[in-house]
Amino acid sequence: MIKIENKFLNRIVTYFFDASMEELKNLVDGEIVFVTDRNIFNLHQQKFASQKTIVIEAGEAFKQQASVDYIIAELIKIGATRKTTLIGVGGGVVTDITGYAASVYMRGINFAFVPTTILAMVDAAIGGKNGVDVGLYKNLVGTINQPQFLLYDFNFLQTLPNEEWVNGFAEIIKHACIKDEKLFTDLENNSVDIYKKDVQFLSNLIKKNATIKTNVVIEDEFEKGDRKLLNFGHTFGHAIENLHQLPHGYAVSIGMCMAAKISEEINGFYSEDKLRLEKLLKQYHLPTQCSFDKANVFEILKKDKKRYDASIDFILLNKIGEAKIQSIPLTQLKDLMNQIL
Amino acid sequence: MIKIENKFLNRIVTYFFDASMEELKNLVDGEIVFVTDRNIFNLHQQKFASQKTIVIEAGEAFKQQASVDYIIAELIKIGATRKTTLIGVGGGVVTDITGYAASVYMRGINFAFVPTTILAMVDAAIGGKNGVDVGLYKNLVGTINQPQFLLYDFNFLQTLPNEEWVNGFAEIIKHACIKDEKLFTDLENNSVDIYKKDVQFLSNLIKKNATIKTNVVIEDEFEKGDRKLLNFGHTFGHAIENLHQLPHGYAVSIGMCMAAKISEEINGFYSEDKLRLEKLLKQYHLPTQCSFDKANVFEILKKDKKRYDASIDFILLNKIGEAKIQSIPLTQLKDLMNQIL
Repeated sequence: MIKIENKFLNRIVTYFFDASMEELKNLVDGEIVFVTDRNIFNLHQQKFASQKTIVIEAGEAFKQQASVDYIIAELIKIGATRKTTLIGVGGGVVTDITGYAASVYMRGINFAFVPTTILAMVDAAIGGKNGVDVGLYKNLVGTINQPQFLLYDFNFLQTLPNEEWVNGFAEIIKHACIKDEKLFTDLENNSVDIYKKDVQFLSNLIKKNATIKTNVVIEDEFEKGDRKLLNFGHTFGHAIENLHQLPHGYAVSIGMCMAAKISEEINGFYSEDKLRLEKLLKQYHLPTQCSFDKANVFEILKKDKKRYDASIDFILLNKIGEAKIQSIPLTQLKDLMNQIL
Repeated sequence: MIKIENKFLNRIVTYFFDASMEELKNLVDGEIVFVTDRNIFNLHQQKFASQKTIVIEAGEAFKQQASVDYIIAELIKIGATRKTTLIGVGGGVVTDITGYAASVYMRGINFAFVPTTILAMVDAAIGGKNGVDVGLYKNLVGTINQPQFLLYDFNFLQTLPNEEWVNGFAEIIKHACIKDEKLFTDLENNSVDIYKKDVQFLSNLIKKNATIKTNVVIEDEFEKGDRKLLNFGHTFGHAIENLHQLPHGYAVSIGMCMAAKISEEINGFYSEDKLRLEKLLKQYHLPTQCSFDKANVFEILKKDKKRYDASIDFILLNKIGEAKIQSIPLTQLKDLMNQIL
């Protein structure tokens, strides 16, 4: 087990890599209550044997207030106190909801995560953003509050469906695009199958990506500046994700292609690099385009959290490995969408 | 208008005393959205004329997640962004819900309060605790997050029902009990009617009480120690409040009498001081006892946020003007309840 301490603004968050869920009992003082989804619970029942466990329905469609209400009601039934630690075991939906429920139950109790998907391991479980969707609007309600720790147990990846592997690589490729050209090249020289076969190689990739995300967040926890770079591909991505019920990584992959086109159009991003990005996404079995109703997408953009008045903070690429924030008027974004997407 | 800046952990909160709601437009950059309840809205419609206003139903029964869901839905309709300031105009229910909705909408937008009741002016609007009840369990869900400012407009007191005046004095008497014997004596020498008739005299009382509460909170914002003293009368108070649908101050008044009896029994609090407290509460038209089902009350105590494992952090009086925190086993509390209450 490798232990790394990360110093966020109000809390040190410990990451336990190459660990096992059995070690949790040594890491937590006081009562543990688990939150997981029905898929994980059914696939890994022995891990939850004789543990207090709250099981929510699986999938983004259940990332809504009703699931939080359910968790709160169960915590009351269990008799959870301010000394209880809530541990979310699952993908991004479970970790986001668990972090949110723990942040508001009794005005905040301790919580931690065991991310079980590639996406949660490199992205969703990191950085303290938690919350739920409101109808089609992604993550419209939540808080920013760091967990006590993350525990990485690669055992869970043995039951991860292929689509979920692919899904996670979208955020890995995003990290390479905005922060790390060397990682981009490494990814070009490998494939999902290679990473699947070599757990140590995969572990290094996950550690590297967890570190990229963590460093960006530590520099700007409350997203006044550079943390916004992590939204590369997410403005259009979020808009099409719930509209078309796409997996998050698939939507972000398409969103990155759209943002790359806009970067080419207004930020001098090289056409060859745009094609290189599209090629890499395809190599990892990710989609690079989809047909969508522009009017509907534009309506959702208008409700984006990153919008201020009539403009939106949009993430453009300067080159592979380097991104920038640019405020783009919604009217211009609409024109760009109509012209080039 | 008197302006006082209070330095909390993460934010300076400005209190504008002797102010008028019309001055808000000079205090806020960007869009304002008001939240108020139907009573306030109907009584003071001109104050909300041509303002974006979300109206919730009045009363503790509506201090539930459903009201937060409604506010969030209205904010989406209005198109509120991260630059919107949400201003709660009302009593404690409105300020608690508004603070909570603002703390989670888009993971937190600015908010401020215009408290319209005595209770909100001296207590509920101060200190950053926000949230909602869950069924009968008071404030079981919420966050601690400070508003940008409080604005005191005594105009609202002209329409305040007498019961609400009485209600507010319970928390004023509580402040005197735990922190200020001089204030206790002042209260003994006056009455609700005297304060009602002299707005400057009342204004001074409100400023003094806002300051007492503020100083306690600033010393211990996240309630690790002395902030708990503010819970004097609230452990039994909360338990009977929703069970018997009592106004908050009435429940706290009865709760203070119960806590005084327990203080006499196990903390050497003088019997004469207990009688002095009961006399003062009666002088302000507050109830000092009620019949209640002990088994029901005990069930609610078991879910109290201040409970840790098998004990509860209970507030006892040493003397008038001085309180202490004592961890009392639930079993002992049950015995005390059966013996002396």
